[in-house]
Amino acid sequence: MKARLDHVGIAVRDLSEALAFYRDVLGLDVGPPEEVPAQGVRVHLIPLGEASVELLEPMAADTPVGRFLDRRGPGLHHLTLRVADITAALARLRQRGVRLIDDTPRRGAGGALVAFVHPAGAHGVLVELRQETAETTRTETGSGDGL
Amino acid sequence: MKARLDHVGIAVRDLSEALAFYRDVLGLDVGPPEEVPAQGVRVHLIPLGEASVELLEPMAADTPVGRFLDRRGPGLHHLTLRVADITAALARLRQRGVRLIDDTPRRGAGGALVAFVHPAGAHGVLVELRQETAETTRTETGSGDGL
Repeated sequence: MKARLDHVGIAVRDLSEALAFYRDVLGLDVGPPEEVPAQGVRVHLIPLGEASVELLEPMAADTPVGRFLDRRGPGLHHLTLRVADITAALARLRQRGVRLIDDTPRRGAGGALVAFVHPAGAHGVLVELRQETAETTRTETGSGDGL
Repeated sequence: MKARLDHVGIAVRDLSEALAFYRDVLGLDVGPPEEVPAQGVRVHLIPLGEASVELLEPMAADTPVGRFLDRRGPGLHHLTLRVADITAALARLRQRGVRLIDDTPRRGAGGALVAFVHPAGAHGVLVELRQETAETTRTETGSGDGL
């Protein structure tokens, strides 16, 4: 299957503190805030060339990212692979017995179709699959331009 | 500062088991094995468009990745940002009081100059800075081509 590294999600306790590091200390361009109520997070995207970092702040303690912070503290949270056909990718994984969190794609940040593979099925990594759609609003530019 | 997401490092207990997932289940192209004795790891690079995933297996238990596995289990380990001038980037971070693991760059995988920022200085994320050099051997192609 063809895939690109789309973004890496980072769980943070407080977006403004995290921005103080990524935007003010590192001096990176940071996208506008976005809310993804379906996943219970507020996010900021940091475009870094073709791939991005996505900062995730939980909207409440009782959300997947809130529970992750309780359990493991802030840090790397998930890895997102962009695929051309998410339905085919999920069928391929199911066929090979990989444990999925989402059996069918749902709407994620930026309007894309997304589905999560369970970390137990991917050697401890929470893998998100993502297929861009006509409604996808995220841009591809940022600090990496011209590097 | 300008930066690109270069790769995401994933700590694994066993490279062949991890390859069974990334290469055989997901069907991704996987690079040849590489040893980085300075960091005590055997690695496989999985090119995913412009960015990559780097699978890291410790060469011994008493190595940074070996200790990470003991403490946290397999999973996302570090995030690597490619910068044009690693010395300037380190100076910028030092000036702003960010805790570094490496005060000066050293040789990393693929012959690049690398330096690590301490997770305590980056909200729980082990951030690696990387500057390509004339000796850099890593290629940029892989499963993401044409996607």
